[in-house]
Amino acid sequence: MSWRFNALVLTTILALGFSALATSEPRYVILLIGDGMDDSQITLARNYLKGAQGRLQMDSLPFRSSVQVITMSEQDPSKPVYVADSANTATTLATGQVTSRGRIATTAKTDKDLTTIAELAKAAGYATGIVTTASITDATPAAFISHIGLRGCQNSERMWTATSLDKSRQGCEADLKANGGKGSIAEQIAEGTTDLILGGGNKHFQIMAETTDQTVQSIAEANGYSVIHNTKVLQAMTGEEKILGLFARKTMEVKLRGKDDRKAEHPKRKIKNWLSWSPNTATLPEPMQCEANPDFANTPTLPTMTQAALDLLVKRGGDKGFFLMVESASIDKQAHRRNPCGQIGELEQLDDALKKALTFAKQHANTLILVTADHGHAAQIIPLRYALPKKLSTPDKAKFDKSKADIYSPGKVALLQTADDQIMVINYATNNASSADHTGTQVPLMSNQPLPGMMQQSEIFSIMQKYLQL
Amino acid sequence: MSWRFNALVLTTILALGFSALATSEPRYVILLIGDGMDDSQITLARNYLKGAQGRLQMDSLPFRSSVQVITMSEQDPSKPVYVADSANTATTLATGQVTSRGRIATTAKTDKDLTTIAELAKAAGYATGIVTTASITDATPAAFISHIGLRGCQNSERMWTATSLDKSRQGCEADLKANGGKGSIAEQIAEGTTDLILGGGNKHFQIMAETTDQTVQSIAEANGYSVIHNTKVLQAMTGEEKILGLFARKTMEVKLRGKDDRKAEHPKRKIKNWLSWSPNTATLPEPMQCEANPDFANTPTLPTMTQAALDLLVKRGGDKGFFLMVESASIDKQAHRRNPCGQIGELEQLDDALKKALTFAKQHANTLILVTADHGHAAQIIPLRYALPKKLSTPDKAKFDKSKADIYSPGKVALLQTADDQIMVINYATNNASSADHTGTQVPLMSNQPLPGMMQQSEIFSIMQKYLQL
Repeated sequence: MSWRFNALVLTTILALGFSALATSEPRYVILLIGDGMDDSQITLARNYLKGAQGRLQMDSLPFRSSVQVITMSEQDPSKPVYVADSANTATTLATGQVTSRGRIATTAKTDKDLTTIAELAKAAGYATGIVTTASITDATPAAFISHIGLRGCQNSERMWTATSLDKSRQGCEADLKANGGKGSIAEQIAEGTTDLILGGGNKHFQIMAETTDQTVQSIAEANGYSVIHNTKVLQAMTGEEKILGLFARKTMEVKLRGKDDRKAEHPKRKIKNWLSWSPNTATLPEPMQCEANPDFANTPTLPTMTQAALDLLVKRGGDKGFFLMVESASIDKQAHRRNPCGQIGELEQLDDALKKALTFAKQHANTLILVTADHGHAAQIIPLRYALPKKLSTPDKAKFDKSKADIYSPGKVALLQTADDQIMVINYATNNASSADHTGTQVPLMSNQPLPGMMQQSEIFSIMQKYLQL
Repeated sequence: MSWRFNALVLTTILALGFSALATSEPRYVILLIGDGMDDSQITLARNYLKGAQGRLQMDSLPFRSSVQVITMSEQDPSKPVYVADSANTATTLATGQVTSRGRIATTAKTDKDLTTIAELAKAAGYATGIVTTASITDATPAAFISHIGLRGCQNSERMWTATSLDKSRQGCEADLKANGGKGSIAEQIAEGTTDLILGGGNKHFQIMAETTDQTVQSIAEANGYSVIHNTKVLQAMTGEEKILGLFARKTMEVKLRGKDDRKAEHPKRKIKNWLSWSPNTATLPEPMQCEANPDFANTPTLPTMTQAALDLLVKRGGDKGFFLMVESASIDKQAHRRNPCGQIGELEQLDDALKKALTFAKQHANTLILVTADHGHAAQIIPLRYALPKKLSTPDKAKFDKSKADIYSPGKVALLQTADDQIMVINYATNNASSADHTGTQVPLMSNQPLPGMMQQSEIFSIMQKYLQL
């Protein structure tokens, strides 16, 4: 198999969209990634936030493609693997190359560094920025601004302990500075050239850098970074210095949670039914609504970080322009936890960040906005053909007014009471483990610029590269 | 809530795409529906048929939109229901109006007939055709050429017994001819004006029509239809007569099946683990490939029927043109049965029918091709992070070479050995009943003409209506 992009598709895109750009004007690329945000996750969020007929901000983007997510086997890179992780997909978005799961901008099996769009843009004189709700050392941001064999090697203490998903690889010994490598992800970021990096993961910067008695933060400061820890300081920045904003110890808090912190739950089977051959009647979880996560109150929102990034990068980019990646990471992380309200709030954050990007694009003609997902996720919207708890009041109540269901999901479900006062049933049933699985579906790509109907994920890199004339 | 389409979107489409059409040339609309064919079902079929990097015919279509599938509550049509069935979605595609589940071109609650695109096209002088692999009386084809309160009322014997999914409604008494109605779906088709109807469902036409001693087939013949039962006769048709092709008793046979007719299966848990609190180890099903379904040999394929329809309708449409709907129905029906090979073969049939449509479009300039799904379905591609049976040989074998998995789907899974000699795991876990569920995801729309990035399902009707100047 060949892993190259489709030259014809790119030619079409160029002919359709980019030819009219004035070459002397600054150019801006804003790549927004909803981690795990496939069509199913988008629909459930829209249904809850805007109603079944409502429109998200992303629904207003005039052009759409669908993206084949391609993953290599580490053992045999000529073979595909059908479900990706965020490390290999972020690598593809950042570098245009396909790799294996767990890898951060390095090649499968041969472990060579791959040049990223942020590095190419920086070298060409653009400002570059990364905004995420995850640790800035987490897989998606890391793949744009570092190179390492395993995503787990986020700081110097994890260089021996990190393991691949399949347990076949452990540690990043070759990447140790002592072995001539570039060190952990945090160290690479601290020593890097990215103009602005905002997100969580402060803990990784308070650890001593390899073979030094300095924290990684102090190394970043020595490298010219203003390291900041709260939004007020961020708002006061002028863009004169490089900025490393660390607003949480690890992943940033999420916006929404289920009422009383409820997540999806197993339908409750009566004990006698576990041992019986008769139909397994069960009681479904009580319907619920989402509520504000109280721990989110002091967290800078994704749109706030995005606006700050746009304001600062447009200054630093000057006549050239910038590349900015914005990730809503916890759509994925909350889906893993089977927490529909969590993932809905994080999709809303991405949509609100997009609103900032669209306003920027109105004011700056040569702006390419791309909104995509890296891979699919577990949650499905399934029918309400179950019994519902008696206290529930909906227009369809009469049919379901009993406490027993004999048809139900074998996984975990949540019954969300929407703004339309109807019940939406969300199902997580990819596995029986503590973390729900990614899925292998093709994912959406939306843009303010023309796109072909179908693409491979590596072509997103190529579109950005061409737009920035790299 | 208002259920109207977005006028702005349509204006954009008209501006982009249709303005260049010569008004005097014939116009052709070919609507291809993959029943249940969401992004996940497309990806698993592509992975199996073409490889992870391969391309389906539909992937070559240059324009894409995503479609909000909207369903009303029968009890309170101001409220949405989050998972559709094929009756209400086909009604929306055929009429531009949203209705409740089970309804065939009639309004929710008020039970008024809704005019369909086929009826509008016929009245304006176009030829009209319906091709399906289901019974031609099944929900999707029926919604284009008949009007009735419940999809189950396919023939005169079912007018009392058909029930809605939620059991709240039974029978189609108001639609009985004795009560001034139009009779069952089969009778309406037999008495209709559609130029060409090809598919299964012969049994519904061998039943006596209501209050007559004539079969429905003989009524169709009296109404000018050539009723045919095999492909050879179809190939010999000249287009002078209306054609009713009935090639199977009920649903037509499908192209592919699992080796030895295997479908998805439950991971096998050891009996002691059913009663134990220890991790529930299980043995996964043996990997398999798909094979030709021997019963398919004498079945006309969907591309064969589509080609015949194109050839005959272009004659009957003359200077005006035609409207043709082509449905691959058993993507859905095989997904309900948790039969991945079945659904893959039927998606391939749709893709091959599309190839015929694309060739037609090359020869006939004013041709609008739309490929879409009516609703989402159950199957997901999940990771291979399970134990695999010992005899399996894949590049990743080493990691999985044990017969116990302690992480597995709580539903049913199939392990498909693809052309890339890798294992793709397909999961069906929406419920514990005999038939897997539809899901509520937004669905793809692909076209040879420009589309907005996001649409409501009713807007597909509007696009066809505008294209045919109805």
